[in-house]
Amino acid sequence: MTEIPYKIYLSEKELPTTWYNLKAVMKEKPAAMLHPGTLQPCTADDLKQIFCEDLVKQELNTTDRFIEIPEGIRDFYRMYRPSPLVRAYCLEKVLDTPAKIYYKFEGTNTSGSHKLNSAAAQVYYAKKQGITHLTTETGAGQWGTALSMACAYYQVDLTVYMVKISAQQKPYRKSVMETYGAKVIPSPSDTTNVGRKILAENPNTGGSLGCAISEAIEKAICTENCRYVLGSVLDHVILHQTIIGQETKAALEKYDIQPDVIIGCVGGGSNFGGLIAPFMGDKIEGKNNIEFIGVEPASCPSLTRGRYAYDFGDTGRTTPLLKMYTLGSGFIPSPNHAGGLRYHGMSPIVSKLYHDGYIKAMSAEQTKVFEAATLFARSEGTLPAPESSHALYGAIQEALKCKETGEEKTILFGLTGTGYFDLTAYESYNNGTMTDFIPTDEDLEKGFASLPVVE
Amino acid sequence: MTEIPYKIYLSEKELPTTWYNLKAVMKEKPAAMLHPGTLQPCTADDLKQIFCEDLVKQELNTTDRFIEIPEGIRDFYRMYRPSPLVRAYCLEKVLDTPAKIYYKFEGTNTSGSHKLNSAAAQVYYAKKQGITHLTTETGAGQWGTALSMACAYYQVDLTVYMVKISAQQKPYRKSVMETYGAKVIPSPSDTTNVGRKILAENPNTGGSLGCAISEAIEKAICTENCRYVLGSVLDHVILHQTIIGQETKAALEKYDIQPDVIIGCVGGGSNFGGLIAPFMGDKIEGKNNIEFIGVEPASCPSLTRGRYAYDFGDTGRTTPLLKMYTLGSGFIPSPNHAGGLRYHGMSPIVSKLYHDGYIKAMSAEQTKVFEAATLFARSEGTLPAPESSHALYGAIQEALKCKETGEEKTILFGLTGTGYFDLTAYESYNNGTMTDFIPTDEDLEKGFASLPVVE
Repeated sequence: MTEIPYKIYLSEKELPTTWYNLKAVMKEKPAAMLHPGTLQPCTADDLKQIFCEDLVKQELNTTDRFIEIPEGIRDFYRMYRPSPLVRAYCLEKVLDTPAKIYYKFEGTNTSGSHKLNSAAAQVYYAKKQGITHLTTETGAGQWGTALSMACAYYQVDLTVYMVKISAQQKPYRKSVMETYGAKVIPSPSDTTNVGRKILAENPNTGGSLGCAISEAIEKAICTENCRYVLGSVLDHVILHQTIIGQETKAALEKYDIQPDVIIGCVGGGSNFGGLIAPFMGDKIEGKNNIEFIGVEPASCPSLTRGRYAYDFGDTGRTTPLLKMYTLGSGFIPSPNHAGGLRYHGMSPIVSKLYHDGYIKAMSAEQTKVFEAATLFARSEGTLPAPESSHALYGAIQEALKCKETGEEKTILFGLTGTGYFDLTAYESYNNGTMTDFIPTDEDLEKGFASLPVVE
Repeated sequence: MTEIPYKIYLSEKELPTTWYNLKAVMKEKPAAMLHPGTLQPCTADDLKQIFCEDLVKQELNTTDRFIEIPEGIRDFYRMYRPSPLVRAYCLEKVLDTPAKIYYKFEGTNTSGSHKLNSAAAQVYYAKKQGITHLTTETGAGQWGTALSMACAYYQVDLTVYMVKISAQQKPYRKSVMETYGAKVIPSPSDTTNVGRKILAENPNTGGSLGCAISEAIEKAICTENCRYVLGSVLDHVILHQTIIGQETKAALEKYDIQPDVIIGCVGGGSNFGGLIAPFMGDKIEGKNNIEFIGVEPASCPSLTRGRYAYDFGDTGRTTPLLKMYTLGSGFIPSPNHAGGLRYHGMSPIVSKLYHDGYIKAMSAEQTKVFEAATLFARSEGTLPAPESSHALYGAIQEALKCKETGEEKTILFGLTGTGYFDLTAYESYNNGTMTDFIPTDEDLEKGFASLPVVE
């Protein structure tokens, strides 16, 4: 048997040339996006007001399994991809498990996460269409950083609405986006109607992702030659993230490795959807029997405790309606250091697969997640992001089960990013002040009350 | 001609099995280290009080060109090495230069720099000798972070004396070391005699690297089964860093690339010495005619404005005397965000090569360095560390010269690390408050006055 190296790298020539459009393979497609005014399925024309044309085409494509990655995006990808698939030899040893653990590591670029995969694609298509200005929102800051990097490369202007409390807690995230040339505005702000309205009602609010989305969309609509871009949830974002799964599959096949379980963290669902896509496609076609597990924070449990319903993507209730697992756009997630997972909804594709029984889900409390993260850092070297550590936590649970049963399962998880900007969180874990927040059923009911009525 | 990829990766099987001992090739050896009391050359026995035995052997070895890297260290290296050699296609395009630019990138591990190469080796040898506790100092925090990672892996206790002002300015660096299990003490502290003395004289001091070194050495000498480890300057540290040069040479040879110029930043000199070692060995033997350039901060110009003399390595004047380019251990470097380059002395090996004309040196003002860093981030994606950006600045100057002359030189530089923990510095550059500090001749004279008299 070939010896498996610590890190399996594909060569740049082996960089996948296509994304994997999971919707083309799904027997039942996710429900259509609805126009929030008419409650009718959104047309391409509806969406083109907000998004770039090529992205709208991708969003609505349910027929082509493979979609070509343009050369201009692959050039960008080559700066930091293919990313390594790592055999966690040291973690296995520390856990004393017979399981084989692999992780696909997306944290080797400056944005520190997988977000760059979709940022590059979205900015490329904007540039191609002659768009000169983009807007977006960012919470934890990974998406904003990734988009700033892509905008610097393709030379497109960018305004980032950053959740105010994040901008205050993570000034370095703001600095890094500014270094790449982006304009960063703490949200809510007085630069939009929705921002002014929220500020009038609640002048001291720290903001929220839903609110920042509303501001970014309004700004895009009201600015000439400008579009809005989103870092997760939507089908075209998941499509771009399938570069992760495509590379992973190629790397595994190179060494004839068959995963038994694939685990990812889930917030909006894009990294998980992107990681599992080609494997899920095979599973749907009866070619494998892999177990897929999404891990979410116990503080924001959209899959494990949410409802499968049409809901808005933002607090301002301006986006199209998406059929998804949701806690309600009015749900206010309790504080949690995994800012990237603090979102009320979930990708419609991931939601549909979960609803149809193809995916399992579990939730994790943050102190347990940081315990796993610290164990990983000390054994494998890399300091993981709190978000990514949810997947890591799930993988460790699986590996410990194998230790009990003696099974030699092959466990694969997505390590989406690094924790360099999350050291306040690590500090609170180190000094014992970190606590766990789990919403009560009453808290959840309040969120569900905000769900729109769709006949 | 073969197409050169963006990133040249060696496989793990191609990981070099030896370090390159440049001293074995140098026709004139660097002057011997002197005992500070007797002014006689240090013996192995002298050094064993402070350093581990294997490291002392390496420090004094002037005969073996290749020194084997033990398997236990190569196992650690495999977690993050071989590191990529990157062709800076995007930077070349932005500069519009006919030059070909390559950089060896050492920032893909959590410590964010090359420091891990020597940390792993030093902790491995300590463990092998049965040492249970190590002490060290850290300024910018890269060395302390690297050593914390290595100590977590090899399970050796660690106390880090961190320059007090750095501990205050970079609380995240402290958190990351603590996450890896290290004990971090802001220096000067009341845990050592030298610390108490300095505090008594100057209670409000922010500390210095020289002072932290004195504390760490005292602590090591006064603690059972404990040794001191140092992250730069000494010959054995440079030896470990030659893994950089060894990999770079192998990667270049794979694609038949001949560098014309090799550029590195110089603080203590370890990354530069490690990068150039095998190329310099060949140059000494007449096998190439590469130009070597060390770039230092204008605020701490030990090569370009220092004296070649015996000096102490620390402010407390407790270390052996090293023959090196130095500004005097009493020199107080002006504030500069490249904390890792704020050191009064320079590696004796690099100093000797510079003295003998094998190396050129230049200095750079920090606003120019950050201008280069920002240009690089926006074109190549990666956010460079301020220290590394000195090498980058030098490389850009060379590339711009080629643009004028039309020469198609091949320029190689060392990108030693990332700037994730340096965003306060980027912020001050972004908002225009960054200034340059260049010591006057009078400032330098004050430093030279602290040089010891060695007949």
